[in-house]
Amino acid sequence: MIKVTLIGKGNVSYHLNKAFQAANNVQVIDVLPSRKNGLEIALRDKKNRDSDVYIITVSDDAISAVSQQLTNIDSLVVHTAGGVPIEALSKQLKSGIFYPLQTFSKDRELDYKTIPICIEAKTEEDLKLLKKLANAISDTSYEIDSEKRKQLHLAAVFVNNFSNHLYHIGHELCEENNVPFEVLKPLIKETALKMDALLPKNAQTGPAKRGDQKTIAGHLEQLKNQNHKKLYRFLTDSIQHTYGKKL
Amino acid sequence: MIKVTLIGKGNVSYHLNKAFQAANNVQVIDVLPSRKNGLEIALRDKKNRDSDVYIITVSDDAISAVSQQLTNIDSLVVHTAGGVPIEALSKQLKSGIFYPLQTFSKDRELDYKTIPICIEAKTEEDLKLLKKLANAISDTSYEIDSEKRKQLHLAAVFVNNFSNHLYHIGHELCEENNVPFEVLKPLIKETALKMDALLPKNAQTGPAKRGDQKTIAGHLEQLKNQNHKKLYRFLTDSIQHTYGKKL
Repeated sequence: MIKVTLIGKGNVSYHLNKAFQAANNVQVIDVLPSRKNGLEIALRDKKNRDSDVYIITVSDDAISAVSQQLTNIDSLVVHTAGGVPIEALSKQLKSGIFYPLQTFSKDRELDYKTIPICIEAKTEEDLKLLKKLANAISDTSYEIDSEKRKQLHLAAVFVNNFSNHLYHIGHELCEENNVPFEVLKPLIKETALKMDALLPKNAQTGPAKRGDQKTIAGHLEQLKNQNHKKLYRFLTDSIQHTYGKKL
Repeated sequence: MIKVTLIGKGNVSYHLNKAFQAANNVQVIDVLPSRKNGLEIALRDKKNRDSDVYIITVSDDAISAVSQQLTNIDSLVVHTAGGVPIEALSKQLKSGIFYPLQTFSKDRELDYKTIPICIEAKTEEDLKLLKKLANAISDTSYEIDSEKRKQLHLAAVFVNNFSNHLYHIGHELCEENNVPFEVLKPLIKETALKMDALLPKNAQTGPAKRGDQKTIAGHLEQLKNQNHKKLYRFLTDSIQHTYGKKL
């Protein structure tokens, strides 16, 4: 049985807690507040100093300060942030990373089994513990160092944050023209699911890839929002650059 | 039984043919070549002049010319292009639109039941026929006129073509840094599947949405490719604009 204490009460904490609760070999001792006083008081309680792993799930900028409060803890202390190096955790700690690479919203159920957990630690023993913890809730874990994780986090911004923003623009265009956004959902899904079978480079379709200048000119004329127009031009240019075509 | 003749042998034709073959009440008479001579010769055959619906699946620019060759046909003639108006088809024809809103690659199996078919026609009778044909292969059909379809097609470019290009950039970043692209696939899927439960505006996460300037600055520093750097800046700016934040 791995005893776990979560620190922070945001989306990641909420979903991790649910996943750990459902696992056989993990016991969540408590979910502690991350604010200075609240955490300090909670850590006075002996049961809160007795876990095998402490998981800090606070915002990137707060990780370092929270870790400073845990220097009396002998157990492994990890954070869950993609873009923050292991060095952000206090040097006095046995430190590590437990980064579930997924987009978390409280309103959305998640199947934790499918979420890759990226782990990092400074000793073989700690790594083994994190691997065991990862496997308790997920089918896949990857050992990835801070430098590579930083790059992965950046790539995640492109495929998640930026794609979602494109969905938002698609939604706006539908609203403006009284077309149900519903019609686009199967396309959005298939675009993503295609990645199981094809490399993105080989899955590309559309006017930019085909070099269909007439359709591109028509689309630019249709777009009223100057921001959308610039974005359309920029992404079309980027696609044509990828396939050696010129605007 | 609806008798159908397909014209053109690209991805859309391939997938439509497969879907019609599997339907109970549709008979595909033939798949005709779209090139001038080949089509002319094929149309001399009486069986090729006897279908209920002719579906032109050629590239946008070729639709008009192909439709000119069908002026002896009394049946309904439709095209499958999102961005081309119904007027592109010869005025001498009973014309319509049969636009399956999906991304088609030959290497990829598709569940046609989930693909929305956007239909348009000039008479109630033709519309009824297209609706019947759509329902033979798909669970959903929408009656959408040429103007709205043009807007829908533009929105589809954002959510499909442009998103796929972002996946490509994510893939490039992984390759450059020796991280398996595999790790990002569950994130890509969940980003799309989330649309079942949330509006894109409410699903947005990440540094741009949070206004996390430190992470944004770090990402910009990480990016070596000037094109990717510009794109990152532009999309971040666009997200911050959406949520009333300033870079």
